[in-house]
Amino acid sequence: MAMLGYSRSNRLGVSAIIGLGNKSDIDEYDLIEYFGRDEGTSLLALHIEGIRDGRAILEAAKRVAKKKPILALKAGRTLEGMKAASSHTGSLASDPVMVDQLFGSSGILLVQGMNLFFDSIKGLAMIPKPSGEEVLIVTGAGGLGVLLSDACIQNGLRLLKPPQDLLDEAKKFVPPFGTLGNPIDITGGQPPETYEDVLRLVLKDDRVHAIVLGYWQTLIAPPMDFAKGVVKVFSELPRKPLVVSLSGDVEVEKAAEYLEENGIPATCYAPERAVSMLAAKLKWVQRQPC
Amino acid sequence: MAMLGYSRSNRLGVSAIIGLGNKSDIDEYDLIEYFGRDEGTSLLALHIEGIRDGRAILEAAKRVAKKKPILALKAGRTLEGMKAASSHTGSLASDPVMVDQLFGSSGILLVQGMNLFFDSIKGLAMIPKPSGEEVLIVTGAGGLGVLLSDACIQNGLRLLKPPQDLLDEAKKFVPPFGTLGNPIDITGGQPPETYEDVLRLVLKDDRVHAIVLGYWQTLIAPPMDFAKGVVKVFSELPRKPLVVSLSGDVEVEKAAEYLEENGIPATCYAPERAVSMLAAKLKWVQRQPC
Repeated sequence: MAMLGYSRSNRLGVSAIIGLGNKSDIDEYDLIEYFGRDEGTSLLALHIEGIRDGRAILEAAKRVAKKKPILALKAGRTLEGMKAASSHTGSLASDPVMVDQLFGSSGILLVQGMNLFFDSIKGLAMIPKPSGEEVLIVTGAGGLGVLLSDACIQNGLRLLKPPQDLLDEAKKFVPPFGTLGNPIDITGGQPPETYEDVLRLVLKDDRVHAIVLGYWQTLIAPPMDFAKGVVKVFSELPRKPLVVSLSGDVEVEKAAEYLEENGIPATCYAPERAVSMLAAKLKWVQRQPC
Repeated sequence: MAMLGYSRSNRLGVSAIIGLGNKSDIDEYDLIEYFGRDEGTSLLALHIEGIRDGRAILEAAKRVAKKKPILALKAGRTLEGMKAASSHTGSLASDPVMVDQLFGSSGILLVQGMNLFFDSIKGLAMIPKPSGEEVLIVTGAGGLGVLLSDACIQNGLRLLKPPQDLLDEAKKFVPPFGTLGNPIDITGGQPPETYEDVLRLVLKDDRVHAIVLGYWQTLIAPPMDFAKGVVKVFSELPRKPLVVSLSGDVEVEKAAEYLEENGIPATCYAPERAVSMLAAKLKWVQRQPC
């Protein structure tokens, strides 16, 4: 039910929503097989209380997860949650530790809450497959860069040590009191063109595999001007993982919508959400079962 | 900057936003003292990279936190974040472990990300002071009850073992295939009146200190009918901590707005967010320094 409103509110397509009931016939195994082949479905997201035939799910998931991300939220992670699940379905919720191990070895990504479930769905669906794991942060404000750095590390991402020649190029656009490193901090007094110039530079560089772009609202760089500039640069070049975190007044919400309509995942206010989206995609690539 | 848009978008009042710059004169100590006394301010929320005079902040916070919640987000929690902070302000970010210990002993609530920072602000600002720690979940769907139970436990909340006489009363309203426990699961086929009857019962019971109400959209209980019923019951009785988690199509967003306009914190889609709001308030009460 939550998926209905969330997906509509967040402009995500949904090919099917299936409630499994008491699984007297069809269960997770059948659906992973079916949607693994369905051309209209690019990722599978499971909300699970208990599973019966773990081995069958494991085998199906191993095959499918190579082509399509599979994400799972395990409900009944606590004793109290398991008790509630037992009253709900009459069956025991599966041990969360067992499910973690089973899913981990099958390439299924497990998340701990609905918010992360939704953000991960968006990231997995919208972000193109990265060619490596080196992440670079570009920020329009130092404090935002600190929060984005923390979020990258806490999500297990690798921050690129930017090569000197890349920084030398970036120096042409960044004012002397900015910071050339990771983050690249262009500082808050810059027009949209500075975001565009630095973004173009790092999108073009093959040593940068994914970009987290932090926007900070100022009079000289209004949200929609920034967003249009980003979309322009992004559409000129081959697609690469890019997420945008916007901080500012409510106008940033329209700018985020515009970015997403043009294929770039964007979040407002909470910087760690943009990073979670990227992390889901990078984890999916890392965790492919052999 | 993020606070600007978030607070406007979430109908929260802001008495002041202050950027401390390089703190050559005024620092956190002065502001905790000042806003501790300011009658137009009911809570303080700090975004901190580094602190200089920990002892002064500790003393001020101990005094103020008894009357007003103080919440803090420590940026620069990772080595990479600390490095970014150092380029940003030219000063070293404070060790996060030291800050955790210092703040913990002063009654300041520390949170790990912006999303939780915002949800905690809303919970602390809107929820009345609870008279105890026993939480009861009432849900319109079993699966939602499982997720809410998990979130309560993972947030360190206590789930009330409901007294038999309370459950006997609830039995008059809940269908036989529902569940009488914690959660109380009224099941998905019930009209708004069932939510109202059960809510009135638990709001009146002094052994229930806080309520998490889970709503599940159905044809028989449309979101706005549900919300109006909840506001009606809530306004008849003395104020008590109540948070609402709504699952359904986009119409639940309007229902959540209506609940919040009437003083009841409400979140859509991600059940754990409603629980985080309540958890912030309960933690504030628990952690008062002697």
